Amino acid sequence: MSEKLTEKPVVSFLNELASSAPAPGGGSVAALAGALGAALISMVNNLTIGKEKYASVQTDIKALLEKSESLRKKLADRLEEDVVVYTKLSQTMKMPRDTEEQKNARAKAMDRDLKAAADVPLHVAEACVAVMELCRPVAEKGNINAVSDVGVGILMAEAGLRSAALNVLINLGWIKDARYVSETRNKLDALLQGKPALRDEIYELVASKL
Amino acid sequence: MSEKLTEKPVVSFLNELASSAPAPGGGSVAALAGALGAALISMVNNLTIGKEKYASVQTDIKALLEKSESLRKKLADRLEEDVVVYTKLSQTMKMPRDTEEQKNARAKAMDRDLKAAADVPLHVAEACVAVMELCRPVAEKGNINAVSDVGVGILMAEAGLRSAALNVLINLGWIKDARYVSETRNKLDALLQGKPALRDEIYELVASKL
Repeated sequence: MSEKLTEKPVVSFLNELASSAPAPGGGSVAALAGALGAALISMVNNLTIGKEKYASVQTDIKALLEKSESLRKKLADRLEEDVVVYTKLSQTMKMPRDTEEQKNARAKAMDRDLKAAADVPLHVAEACVAVMELCRPVAEKGNINAVSDVGVGILMAEAGLRSAALNVLINLGWIKDARYVSETRNKLDALLQGKPALRDEIYELVASKL
Repeated sequence: MSEKLTEKPVVSFLNELASSAPAPGGGSVAALAGALGAALISMVNNLTIGKEKYASVQTDIKALLEKSESLRKKLADRLEEDVVVYTKLSQTMKMPRDTEEQKNARAKAMDRDLKAAADVPLHVAEACVAVMELCRPVAEKGNINAVSDVGVGILMAEAGLRSAALNVLINLGWIKDARYVSETRNKLDALLQGKPALRDEIYELVASKL
């Protein structure tokens, strides 16, 4: 088993991303963007905890920190998962298809692996939306000196969401199971709904406090 | 001198980001987002080079790869620079201000260091715009199988641009030199101009090819 992607130095991650190697790719970047957003929200919470000026919001901020840290962990895990499912899919693509039996076995395995490859970015998209939903209370209650970091947080989480959406869509295009495709597309549409507006709202809220 | 930020494992970078330590923060994330975008554009170029199907665009793609790699290197360097100028600024903030002389010396040093702290994200913003400008030709000419990665690339570059903008603005608010402030704000406005539309255009172009 090769080293985990998140255990590699940032510069190696960037080098491997830029190379023609099959993974990491856009799916991993989507998860990383979400994790960066969650980490920034955690940072603002950590810069608020224990500060006298913010005494009245300590309970809220601690609850928000618990959520942002849980999402950060989830998104970092998804980054690894994305590589696993993508590698599996690449192997299945190479299955023989000389006989009818082989063709059927390959088609079945492909559909299973494509669904797994679509599920990971779908979960990334869900987690990115959850990060976005933490931004307003943190921008309103958190340490004002770090409010620009909430702005960067929502930008990263929204970019993660839309990047994940592209990675769901690219897999859906190849999946034969029409019911799965339509259900997944509906879930994705619901996640994307209203998010550009939320991004703009939080960005404006942050900019107004700079 | 501490270890370079980009030499740390991704997971350590995320841990340090989430902590209340002064750096890294949103400024480093802006540069990293741009570098991730540039790396994805490089990846698509690398997946196009040497492929028979794309024989007619090899010269163009090689030129685009040279640009994306140069921007990736520049943005990774800015990530380190951001920490350096921010650390310097934190130290200057602690300069004594008991006498008039000390107050003047501190104010002068603050203005110098705040300008350096604004210049780094301004250069990050410029590089992110340059990454965004590579996306259309790569989406049109590059390997169609990796077109979703161009989509993720533009999302990351645009998030990097706007994140950098917030980090310029937060510093401008404290700078006394009115001419510098107005010139920098003009440069920033010019960089931001039309970029949400460009992001949407490339995203739609990519989605139409999935």
